[in-house]
Amino acid sequence: MGHRENPRPGGRSARVQAAVHQSVREMLSKMDRADVTIPLIAQRANVTPSTIYRRWGDLQELLADVAASRLQPEGEPARIGSAREDLEAWVEQYADEMASGVGRQMLRDVLATIDGANAEKCSGYTQQQLCVLIARARENGEPFPSLGELMDHLISPIIYRILFDQAFDAGYARELVARVMRKSNA
Amino acid sequence: MGHRENPRPGGRSARVQAAVHQSVREMLSKMDRADVTIPLIAQRANVTPSTIYRRWGDLQELLADVAASRLQPEGEPARIGSAREDLEAWVEQYADEMASGVGRQMLRDVLATIDGANAEKCSGYTQQQLCVLIARARENGEPFPSLGELMDHLISPIIYRILFDQAFDAGYARELVARVMRKSNA
Repeated sequence: MGHRENPRPGGRSARVQAAVHQSVREMLSKMDRADVTIPLIAQRANVTPSTIYRRWGDLQELLADVAASRLQPEGEPARIGSAREDLEAWVEQYADEMASGVGRQMLRDVLATIDGANAEKCSGYTQQQLCVLIARARENGEPFPSLGELMDHLISPIIYRILFDQAFDAGYARELVARVMRKSNA
Repeated sequence: MGHRENPRPGGRSARVQAAVHQSVREMLSKMDRADVTIPLIAQRANVTPSTIYRRWGDLQELLADVAASRLQPEGEPARIGSAREDLEAWVEQYADEMASGVGRQMLRDVLATIDGANAEKCSGYTQQQLCVLIARARENGEPFPSLGELMDHLISPIIYRILFDQAFDAGYARELVARVMRKSNA
């Protein structure tokens, strides 16, 4: 369903997607999730329910698509100082967002669908952000972990704790950064 | 809802739970998941739908409870040789099971509920298995990673890849074991 990914900007398909996504976001911020239905979303977005069914299949797929879009980062990681400092600041914000109520709900929505395309998309966003930091480290000549090391030993433990443990401690992200850095400097 | 955890064995509550769980497992093996409903489960388990609603709240909670029970290991990790060899064999089987279609569906079910109790339970099962291996290593005087190291650097990356990537390579689990071992021997 590649047309969902990159509808022609300003085209009818892009406008439908924007209207439906916005309606879902507004409804989720005001209503109980269990009360959100495709007919109500369609009414609010001023499209027919069949437009939504044709494009997204069912409510779960639509919620996963909206969640994946919301997890798309708005810009590059902030420049604080060294690539390591940039990573520390980025990861703190990333962990905070994912561990928040909204973040947990988005993760649940993204993981609830069977095809996994939205989950891959989210992981792709995270990897893009980390690649920016890796490129900065290379420019500075700083030793820095590889993308694989960062995904396995920094992102994975953070997401696992958020998904499977209720408690999430912000200091934990800093500790993981220190550990993955020690490894790449060793 | 502690009564769900440990109903008195053989009591009415335990019998209802066993009948409902078995009905769900049988139905999931034969029917499309979307066609599984509480009234159908109740009919098959020979209980009233209200018994199920009272005890589990909704279908999603019931599916998460069944999935968590199925993720409960049947015994201790097999004894192969050293604790490291036991870990390698255990982790290979663990990764295979979780990456299978049934495993992925169980993970999705466990993660779909808001309260997270079933997700914590599953993570607890994994931690218990790893603690058995840690105790064996201690008996043998083998160097071995801590529970935290194993959860962060072995289990978390495996589960992250299964949830967020479509591809999962069995050799990857062996590589993670080798890495976490190098660290704990360093």
